[in-house]
Amino acid sequence: MAVITRLSSYFVRTLREDPADAELPSHKWLVRAGYIRRVAPGIYSWLPLGLRVLQKVEQIVREEMDAIGGQEVRFPGLLPREPYEATHRWTEYGPNLFRLHDRKGSDYLLGPTHEEMFTLLVKDLYSSYKDLPLFLYQIQIKYRDEARPRAGLLRGREFVMKDSYSFDVDDAGLVESYNRHREAYVRIFDRLGLEYVIVQAMSGAMGGSASEEFLAVCDNGEDTFVRSPGGYAANVEAVRITPPADQDASDAGPARAIDTPGTPTIADLVAVVNQKLPRADRAWAAADTLKNVVFKLVSPDGRTETLVIGLPGDREVDAKRLEAAVSPAEAVPFADDDFLANPALVKGYIGPVSLASGAVEQVLGEQGTAKVRYLLDPRVVPGSRWVTGANVVDTHQVDVVAGRDFTADGVIDVAEIRQGDPAPDGSGPLSLARGIEMGHIFQLGRKYADALGLKVLDANGKLVTVTMGSYGVGVSRAVAAVAEATCDDKGLAWPRALAPFDVQVVATGKDEAVLAAAEQLASELDAAGVAVLLDDRKASPGVKFADAEVLGMPTVVIVGRGLADGVIEVRDRTSGERTELGFEGAAAKLVALLTAG
Amino acid sequence: MAVITRLSSYFVRTLREDPADAELPSHKWLVRAGYIRRVAPGIYSWLPLGLRVLQKVEQIVREEMDAIGGQEVRFPGLLPREPYEATHRWTEYGPNLFRLHDRKGSDYLLGPTHEEMFTLLVKDLYSSYKDLPLFLYQIQIKYRDEARPRAGLLRGREFVMKDSYSFDVDDAGLVESYNRHREAYVRIFDRLGLEYVIVQAMSGAMGGSASEEFLAVCDNGEDTFVRSPGGYAANVEAVRITPPADQDASDAGPARAIDTPGTPTIADLVAVVNQKLPRADRAWAAADTLKNVVFKLVSPDGRTETLVIGLPGDREVDAKRLEAAVSPAEAVPFADDDFLANPALVKGYIGPVSLASGAVEQVLGEQGTAKVRYLLDPRVVPGSRWVTGANVVDTHQVDVVAGRDFTADGVIDVAEIRQGDPAPDGSGPLSLARGIEMGHIFQLGRKYADALGLKVLDANGKLVTVTMGSYGVGVSRAVAAVAEATCDDKGLAWPRALAPFDVQVVATGKDEAVLAAAEQLASELDAAGVAVLLDDRKASPGVKFADAEVLGMPTVVIVGRGLADGVIEVRDRTSGERTELGFEGAAAKLVALLTAG
Repeated sequence: MAVITRLSSYFVRTLREDPADAELPSHKWLVRAGYIRRVAPGIYSWLPLGLRVLQKVEQIVREEMDAIGGQEVRFPGLLPREPYEATHRWTEYGPNLFRLHDRKGSDYLLGPTHEEMFTLLVKDLYSSYKDLPLFLYQIQIKYRDEARPRAGLLRGREFVMKDSYSFDVDDAGLVESYNRHREAYVRIFDRLGLEYVIVQAMSGAMGGSASEEFLAVCDNGEDTFVRSPGGYAANVEAVRITPPADQDASDAGPARAIDTPGTPTIADLVAVVNQKLPRADRAWAAADTLKNVVFKLVSPDGRTETLVIGLPGDREVDAKRLEAAVSPAEAVPFADDDFLANPALVKGYIGPVSLASGAVEQVLGEQGTAKVRYLLDPRVVPGSRWVTGANVVDTHQVDVVAGRDFTADGVIDVAEIRQGDPAPDGSGPLSLARGIEMGHIFQLGRKYADALGLKVLDANGKLVTVTMGSYGVGVSRAVAAVAEATCDDKGLAWPRALAPFDVQVVATGKDEAVLAAAEQLASELDAAGVAVLLDDRKASPGVKFADAEVLGMPTVVIVGRGLADGVIEVRDRTSGERTELGFEGAAAKLVALLTAG
Repeated sequence: MAVITRLSSYFVRTLREDPADAELPSHKWLVRAGYIRRVAPGIYSWLPLGLRVLQKVEQIVREEMDAIGGQEVRFPGLLPREPYEATHRWTEYGPNLFRLHDRKGSDYLLGPTHEEMFTLLVKDLYSSYKDLPLFLYQIQIKYRDEARPRAGLLRGREFVMKDSYSFDVDDAGLVESYNRHREAYVRIFDRLGLEYVIVQAMSGAMGGSASEEFLAVCDNGEDTFVRSPGGYAANVEAVRITPPADQDASDAGPARAIDTPGTPTIADLVAVVNQKLPRADRAWAAADTLKNVVFKLVSPDGRTETLVIGLPGDREVDAKRLEAAVSPAEAVPFADDDFLANPALVKGYIGPVSLASGAVEQVLGEQGTAKVRYLLDPRVVPGSRWVTGANVVDTHQVDVVAGRDFTADGVIDVAEIRQGDPAPDGSGPLSLARGIEMGHIFQLGRKYADALGLKVLDANGKLVTVTMGSYGVGVSRAVAAVAEATCDDKGLAWPRALAPFDVQVVATGKDEAVLAAAEQLASELDAAGVAVLLDDRKASPGVKFADAEVLGMPTVVIVGRGLADGVIEVRDRTSGERTELGFEGAAAKLVALLTAG
């Protein structure tokens, strides 16, 4: 016999004030409704209501992983350094990794993800292709020392993830395992009731080849993604533009310098060029200029390097695309100090001719000097001609032809993606939107198996390296993402699949008979398998109604004045719809309603 | 439709070799049977079989905590320093605490227990006596940097605990909350099928007054406890002996020195005294001598102090009783170096007269000097007379009377407890046994509420400090304790309540019909709600039978040669009993058997 949960003794308090650090509605309401509580930046406690939601998400994820043959295990959070050293991630994670010593001085870390540990475990136990494919997963606590923890559970430093790993003997097996996980993820996010998109993604620090993200569509999301009418979808970080065809520059005159006093910006430059060298066909535009932007690349081990990126003057370098491209290094824009230390780079007038082929030395302090690395946007195709810096103050060059007058060390595709840009696959103009990364699936390949020596005997008795996939779901993040998608200006509004309770029964008024009736109804619902929260507090109806909206159970049943006429009221939290119901047999009718919904 | 778990694809391998570090059978078998896997000292991964057992323990604990009105929450493992600083535990935990910095240099710890956090949470949300009593609990991962992690899951550095906390407005409430937890613990350990005792315990670093431990009776346990025929039961650390009555020393002559050359040990001394000063009534015995043992006390903050303990010469200082008594300091026996540095303490001939009242200075290096602290065993009552050291080499004193010739700085009850010693409550002679600490319940009182300012308004509108209880169950430890209690020389042998699967169906032989019959039986059992593990591997019957014994499911069903005669065999893993069963309707008969068992 279950005991009805009563608000009078339930460990929850709704708060009137928004938490000071809440930027997002979901964060605000999860705290104000008493679901979670901040312990330190990016570190939260789960109160009873929040834990119930978290456990529901866990259960959905567990069921779908089991359904594709996943086997649940659980790794520690505290891990030894050595396996992460073998894959270089001990260093590559940089300051994002929580590191510590034990009493004997041995190095440990708090696991940010467990590829290494799973690889070693399988190496420990398995030795034959006959044992594969294998899917292992865990639902477990992870740690990342985020530079900017934000938005409550959305970007925390301690969080719950489901991570799973597939092990296959060959590439075809990996694709099959990847697809089965992809299907399981579709079912998981469908059940969570999220509006989501599946987009091409970058693999980042994880390594490996193909990867896709499941993004919950959300204006407050941190990720930007693009879609085309023809079905292309990618995280902006992962977009690889289709470069234009090479151009014929045989009619181009030689590159020549022009005086462009006071033109450190593209707008200034375009104005001066239009004035000094007006074109017959059209006006010069920002897209005719080649802008060169300088960054300091800082590796996780502390080494620095200077990187110049050349791109059309009408585009900016996209910070997140750049971050993804240079990871695990960090790109920091050149500051005035850096320009002072590198007089060969003339701020505002940097030109590709002098940069080409590493002609410019960079000054790196104690590290001595090294060549500046120069990378070009893919739009700067051979034969394209540009107005660009002459590397002399107040001077630019025109008719500078890519491939003829300069070359670079390579290509980097990190310019901003704009609304209306063509999709790389020709499927139409791109539109941009924002989302929350809820899941990420990777075809890792052999990176970890190679580094840690995971091999099995194949059908011919030959030792082959296993190929792996890695698949994550942000379990605690899902709680926040669903809250963000469903809450309104009155509070939380859970979908049934995740609600801590199906029904909140609110007893109003001081009449003992009302409370007795509410308790009876709650008991009947409970007996029918409905999870009920009974508001039996001595509080005004107004307070109770407002709290019911803050707490966000999908169905609110009010037992109050109407009871004298044998009537109770049913409110749908999401739609706001109100219906009256006869008290006689109300439990059965509610069960029918809930089952239909 | 559940999918039958097949050993051919289940992530488990039984190992032929004992793990090198396994001291205990449970540790050996949990590793060899593929339930857990070591990642680092005292840090383990849970494989699928082990995780199923762990989750069963968690569920039993959860149900019983819910049944007494416990509300489940979940705190982070990574915690900020400040609350633990406020209660001094940041320092007092000494090297047992895992400490780390985040990227900004702030101090964090990995939570060893969460009194501080629960206290602050309740302070945050509650303000009135009307909200109390309150029981909160979590099932969560804890960290302690044990000096000597051992015995697999029994003493780990990362482990799962249930910890709960009660909050009451007054002492009577605390006692009631404590008793309700005690009853819940009885139900938990009954359901786990453990043979256990409830003993009086020390509160240790936790603080507070009354506390009891639930010890699983186990010869390999780390804890020693005592019991009397009359019902007294205590951890040896918690035994407080009943001192004898004061003695009348009015007829004692004055203390006088005797030459006792070459008598640094009690045995030597007793022999010499019997020879030089034979008694008329009986021979001198070790119990007539007063031995003085010297320790260096090291506080968690690094300060040291010298402690001399005087106790009857027939008893030793019990290391664990001493450790508990001086916690959080550590007691290190004086080494030769220490005696050299402290010439006032004459090794082998230390006497109470010169120690009394802090007459001896101790040398503490950079800390300068301080008085030596001198504490007496409670048996050294006023009027008792002793043969003891004269603090001069080769010299002792006789007729040294406690209270007349010397006093001390206090009493310390840390002498060994011996089989046959009287129970402190007069309930008969004590017997000693060993156990594993499975649960510990504390009446904490107001220590944490005081330190962190948890007050509520009482019925008179007055602010009063809340009184707390703290209650722990070693969840991962329970897996090992039950394994230890039930395993035999062939492998694990789970009780039904914790077994990962109820039944292991073993198909033997190469006959396709046998495998088909085994699969049919497994499906029928599964459909009837029985958790089945099907051994469908291509392996010899011998290997399969041996593995079934290693893995330890309570019931093993063998479908093999007998099938030709319509017969299968049922083996009880624990008793070894074998019965034959007709294959027709076997599933129903097995279900009946399991339900009856």
